[in-house]
Amino acid sequence: MSKQILVIGAGRSSSALIDYLLKNAAAEEWFITVGDVSKQTVLAKTRQHPLSKAIAFNVDNAQQRESEIAKADMVVSLLPASMHYNVAKDCVHLKKHMATASYVSKEIGGLDAAARKSGLVLLNECGLDPGLDHMSAMKIIDHIKETGGTLTSFKSYCGGLVAPESNDNPWGYKFSWNPRNVVLAGQGTAQYVEDSKYKYIPYNRLFLQTDTIEIKGYGTFEGYANRDSLLYRTPYGLENIATLFRGTLRMKGYCRAWNAFVALGLTDDTYTISHSDNLTYCELIEAYLPKGKQPTKQKFAAFLQENVDSEVMQKLEWLGIFTDKQITLNNATPAQLLQQLLEEKWKLNTHDKDLVVMQHIFEFNDSKDQPKRIIADLVVKGEDQVNTAMAKTVGLPLAIAVKLILKNKLNTRGVIIPTLKELYEPILEELKSFQVVFNETLTDNS
Amino acid sequence: MSKQILVIGAGRSSSALIDYLLKNAAAEEWFITVGDVSKQTVLAKTRQHPLSKAIAFNVDNAQQRESEIAKADMVVSLLPASMHYNVAKDCVHLKKHMATASYVSKEIGGLDAAARKSGLVLLNECGLDPGLDHMSAMKIIDHIKETGGTLTSFKSYCGGLVAPESNDNPWGYKFSWNPRNVVLAGQGTAQYVEDSKYKYIPYNRLFLQTDTIEIKGYGTFEGYANRDSLLYRTPYGLENIATLFRGTLRMKGYCRAWNAFVALGLTDDTYTISHSDNLTYCELIEAYLPKGKQPTKQKFAAFLQENVDSEVMQKLEWLGIFTDKQITLNNATPAQLLQQLLEEKWKLNTHDKDLVVMQHIFEFNDSKDQPKRIIADLVVKGEDQVNTAMAKTVGLPLAIAVKLILKNKLNTRGVIIPTLKELYEPILEELKSFQVVFNETLTDNS
Repeated sequence: MSKQILVIGAGRSSSALIDYLLKNAAAEEWFITVGDVSKQTVLAKTRQHPLSKAIAFNVDNAQQRESEIAKADMVVSLLPASMHYNVAKDCVHLKKHMATASYVSKEIGGLDAAARKSGLVLLNECGLDPGLDHMSAMKIIDHIKETGGTLTSFKSYCGGLVAPESNDNPWGYKFSWNPRNVVLAGQGTAQYVEDSKYKYIPYNRLFLQTDTIEIKGYGTFEGYANRDSLLYRTPYGLENIATLFRGTLRMKGYCRAWNAFVALGLTDDTYTISHSDNLTYCELIEAYLPKGKQPTKQKFAAFLQENVDSEVMQKLEWLGIFTDKQITLNNATPAQLLQQLLEEKWKLNTHDKDLVVMQHIFEFNDSKDQPKRIIADLVVKGEDQVNTAMAKTVGLPLAIAVKLILKNKLNTRGVIIPTLKELYEPILEELKSFQVVFNETLTDNS
Repeated sequence: MSKQILVIGAGRSSSALIDYLLKNAAAEEWFITVGDVSKQTVLAKTRQHPLSKAIAFNVDNAQQRESEIAKADMVVSLLPASMHYNVAKDCVHLKKHMATASYVSKEIGGLDAAARKSGLVLLNECGLDPGLDHMSAMKIIDHIKETGGTLTSFKSYCGGLVAPESNDNPWGYKFSWNPRNVVLAGQGTAQYVEDSKYKYIPYNRLFLQTDTIEIKGYGTFEGYANRDSLLYRTPYGLENIATLFRGTLRMKGYCRAWNAFVALGLTDDTYTISHSDNLTYCELIEAYLPKGKQPTKQKFAAFLQENVDSEVMQKLEWLGIFTDKQITLNNATPAQLLQQLLEEKWKLNTHDKDLVVMQHIFEFNDSKDQPKRIIADLVVKGEDQVNTAMAKTVGLPLAIAVKLILKNKLNTRGVIIPTLKELYEPILEELKSFQVVFNETLTDNS
């Protein structure tokens, strides 16, 4: 009898996953049900494939959720992370495997014992970042350890960007994933460890304290610190490593310009602006600037200590924030108003190609105590607005993991992430056939 | 039969309130029960006064709370604001009046209908700020309106500081109230309205964007924007005023130096530092600074774009943060570590006098449409570490309000604040006999 796979969510990063499942459905004897609030959105992805069914699906409808999960052998949730928990509880209750590309939440983590007891896999963090970052890092970390080496430093950077040939705006950025996450990125204090000392970077200067990263053939990028790197010590088995840093990549010049919005206060999502639809974007900017008689653009430049025609000011001006452009969202937070503007300006156009870039830098002493360095790069280019590098690098690892689980190739049970060799080895191997390949370079480090 | 008053909490700002109640107890036929987690703390304040009783009181003990409230005619809560709600619920249930000096929370606000129905007063915001600010402002606002004037601008500043003769540290600051509130002050985004336009100042530059305020005989002070000034439009009846701003006062030079901690990230209370008791204060500072070979002090100065011997750096150095001073709190937030240091350095000594300063600036057109300005100043000096200006200006308004309520001089019922004339008139009048007097000056404003 064929295996039933239920995919919940057919948004931005679902295309490659759904394609993979459909292409393998006949050979693997799968039947794929895809549910989304919009059945039309599903049909655009499943295209009436005979081994697929599109359904309108409301994850908050407990009855529908349970009845669909009951029919499945395996559930893949591509919903926003906060919506996974009800699905996961049902999966445990109804004894179904589940896979997501999201971070393990505390609630999901709490299902570990129950999942193990029922012989279930609740796989998380199996997309790009988190996902491919774990797999590619663990492959090298395990190799270094197995060959008698000792890691001293691990830095890892990842970014979802736009390909050079589609880069036609001064920010070098277009949205290939959730715009809200981009606007709110970095709030809180970033934490990492450097030379065995804890280091902290608060949000107010996160985008000013960047590293420069070079990717062969693609030039230099900026990396800013990504949340709490210390969380990775235990899952990566690097409890005593002297330096551990994770960063997010942007094109050169992006961070300093983005910091203008942070400094102004426009990325705040904690309060709403009354009657915001009475304002123009220029008036919105003005509301955050000190009093003064200069025009808004000149005042903003003075506030930022920039020349009015500096690169930062050119980026800001290109967004149209110094014009009479009317705001249309009412009673919205500043972050929502900024997001609405950026979604229009940083839209990935029909034929635009996005770019996923990842780089790991490992420093270690080999078995002869010689200092060495491995740099592992990944660059994946999208095909167009729908078949993005982002959808490919999020969806394919997850889809391949689904195949491994349904073919019983995975022995571990419970709440897991793909730091396990039995997951990362076959997934990284199969990804090569999709041109998702890490380029690894070993050099002396003296 | 005598009236029973239950006072809950005998901390920092209770001395003047307890003194007032005891002094008036015989004449007013009151009996005062004061409860605190520490009975000793109570006894130090009630000093075995024959019309008083000291009890050890645990507000989380529902049985004790109910039985003590049941015996009272009126309850005064000086607990931290978050602890008022259980007391307030019991008061409504047991039909007792209640008074606090804290902001009306949503929960307390929700008791309004029930309190009215039972003919009860739940008075809040009847201390200094909130409290005296409401009363003194409303007195002038009502007067301007009653004489046919139209308010165009209202700015109000308040600070709990240290008296010039006790000011022996470069910050010009010592703690006369809750240190935690001082360390966390201003987090979020300040909001106000200026020339009929909304204005916003995020935390990252709140302490750099200050006003200068002059108080006759006391020189100039700095004022930084205090939370959401817009919240005061409705209670003050100033819905259409063009300019409304509330600020907090500090001695000159304080704000720029305090901003060093904000910029560094040391006022963050959202995460803990593992093994913080392994660090010295110098190592803590270092953990927030970019990598580099300079000594911490020089690096911090460079980070702040200050000369190493600037006023800001002198203030920082005076705190001892560049020394090997060991941190003793473990797994604490950066804000907690900063607070512990400051509590030691900014301690009000036995004979130190604190200083409460308030200034309102009203601009209005009078009945003949002539532009006028009223400036109202209040300066109150404390006597010593216990009998502080803070305790006096928080406790006396509250104590006088208690008297008015028990003497049935107040007609309004429900959840109220002292913007009502029947409260502010007698309270401000009686405060004069305690030398708590606003100095008002009317001038042309052209």
